[in-house]
Amino acid sequence: MTVLILTCEEDVTADMVVVHLNASGVPVVRLDPADLPGAVALSGEYVHGAFRGHLQSAGRLVSISGLRSIWVRRPGTPATRAPDPSDWLTEESSQALYGMLRGSDARWMNHPDAARRARHKPWQLRLAQRCGLPVPATLITSFPQAAREFAERYPDLVVKPVSGAHPQDPPRAVPTSRVAPDTDFSAVAFGPTLLQRRVAKRADIRLTVVGERMLAARKTAGEADEVDVRFASPDVPWQATEVPPRVATAVAAYLRGAELAYGAFDFAEDADGTWWFLECNQSGQFGFVEVETGQPIARAVADWLASPGTEPSSHVNGASGTVR
Amino acid sequence: MTVLILTCEEDVTADMVVVHLNASGVPVVRLDPADLPGAVALSGEYVHGAFRGHLQSAGRLVSISGLRSIWVRRPGTPATRAPDPSDWLTEESSQALYGMLRGSDARWMNHPDAARRARHKPWQLRLAQRCGLPVPATLITSFPQAAREFAERYPDLVVKPVSGAHPQDPPRAVPTSRVAPDTDFSAVAFGPTLLQRRVAKRADIRLTVVGERMLAARKTAGEADEVDVRFASPDVPWQATEVPPRVATAVAAYLRGAELAYGAFDFAEDADGTWWFLECNQSGQFGFVEVETGQPIARAVADWLASPGTEPSSHVNGASGTVR
Repeated sequence: MTVLILTCEEDVTADMVVVHLNASGVPVVRLDPADLPGAVALSGEYVHGAFRGHLQSAGRLVSISGLRSIWVRRPGTPATRAPDPSDWLTEESSQALYGMLRGSDARWMNHPDAARRARHKPWQLRLAQRCGLPVPATLITSFPQAAREFAERYPDLVVKPVSGAHPQDPPRAVPTSRVAPDTDFSAVAFGPTLLQRRVAKRADIRLTVVGERMLAARKTAGEADEVDVRFASPDVPWQATEVPPRVATAVAAYLRGAELAYGAFDFAEDADGTWWFLECNQSGQFGFVEVETGQPIARAVADWLASPGTEPSSHVNGASGTVR
Repeated sequence: MTVLILTCEEDVTADMVVVHLNASGVPVVRLDPADLPGAVALSGEYVHGAFRGHLQSAGRLVSISGLRSIWVRRPGTPATRAPDPSDWLTEESSQALYGMLRGSDARWMNHPDAARRARHKPWQLRLAQRCGLPVPATLITSFPQAAREFAERYPDLVVKPVSGAHPQDPPRAVPTSRVAPDTDFSAVAFGPTLLQRRVAKRADIRLTVVGERMLAARKTAGEADEVDVRFASPDVPWQATEVPPRVATAVAAYLRGAELAYGAFDFAEDADGTWWFLECNQSGQFGFVEVETGQPIARAVADWLASPGTEPSSHVNGASGTVR
């Protein structure tokens, strides 16, 4: 049984995981959907009630029914390296590739549907509440009056993009910022705005979860009182830390509810030691945490991908397994 | 409890359903996401572990917890009618609106995740097979040699777009066509191609399913032997017909597996009376069938949307209800 990794060519994080898989002797096929059609080819036949499908990449042929797991790491957009690319060819290639893979019995890290849903910040906040994670008071609104009233109740606020987009996407690099006390909120009518009570934090927490494994790292807040850890000074290192049992239980419930096999949670730790949920990024980077803390995250990912998959196939597969 | 309809302004099919809902006295809010921000506004507050959200459209305010059902009919792209539209504003508005709605307990016709998945033709074919529906022998391939071998086994073939795109999308208007016996398949390498054994049909079947209700219509095949019913001459009318019990059982399983509340199935009926599965369109039009057959499809949609929703909330909601 083979592990399929969908990612672009230059991906050192995937390289780290492949090293572990190779060491375990687990067959791996790595391909970039951007190379379909071209260096990547596929074929699937539906005859007499059965399906037989194959993928070819770098001269290797792999059966779709022989896939153990699929890691959706950083796949390129299908057909973008085709000789004659077009939106139509991208759509056709994407439907062919993901349509066949969606019908397989492989385990996903993460399933495309679960990944897409998990990007919705308003949904994240609601799920976190339901799982019992402390969520800072938050308002998402396009009503200026609602923003004004919220700011009266919670004078110390930060503002964030609703879509939770990260600086990795240059056009959307909007860091979390503090809201000045005399802010005029009338512009809220021109775009939904996310306001959140600022947590007076003593540390940032990054909790990386791979299947059942939880690896937490802690970074003491600097003097500068920076709000957004992604823009913090790098002189304070990340250090491995323990996960409080109540948080572990709630986080496990969150990932079950979200149907995610992998999630990178950001928390703010306050003076009482409470971990406040900020977000869960289903495709969050882990390389920097592994380098600074020495935590074996790549190894955990490799173990999950290589494991025989005794857990029931996620029901977001729909067409996989027997129909419920 | 209110029915929320997401659609554009000019949508006569939605108008038909609204007439029935109004007649039943069920509160309805209809809005186009393209009007957010602007004529549509929203606000959601996450405080002390609870969520309170509201939508405003045409001066009406509706609580998100008071939504009974959500009909995703033909919604515009969020923020496209904003005073200063941009990709960023569309993303922010989309995440705010759908992120909040995804956290509600309302029933969806159809849930966005299920709808997106259901558009994958290769996944449809596999699910149809698994549910016991007869599927014509089909090959989806970018290997010319595989296409040649398939054409030898099944000399009478049609070719279709993999993405199953419909003529409603002008740039993708590719009708199903017969494959000439001397076809050179080398171009298959430049784009995945769907080849399917042509069913010698005596009729086209459109089966519209709304929740548990199945409404089938039949159109006798014309002399011209046209392959694609969408391009057929309009002089043969659609007529109501019975659903064979085995088909009904398989179709019910399909919709359960696909987590769809609405689906429009296309079948080809052969000389033996067998219904061959061609596709299931989760957003298929039903107005033309209702007009020709007199079948009460709009009424069935209205009934589903208005019903109290005793059936369990679909698990694609994830953040809705209790966490499993």
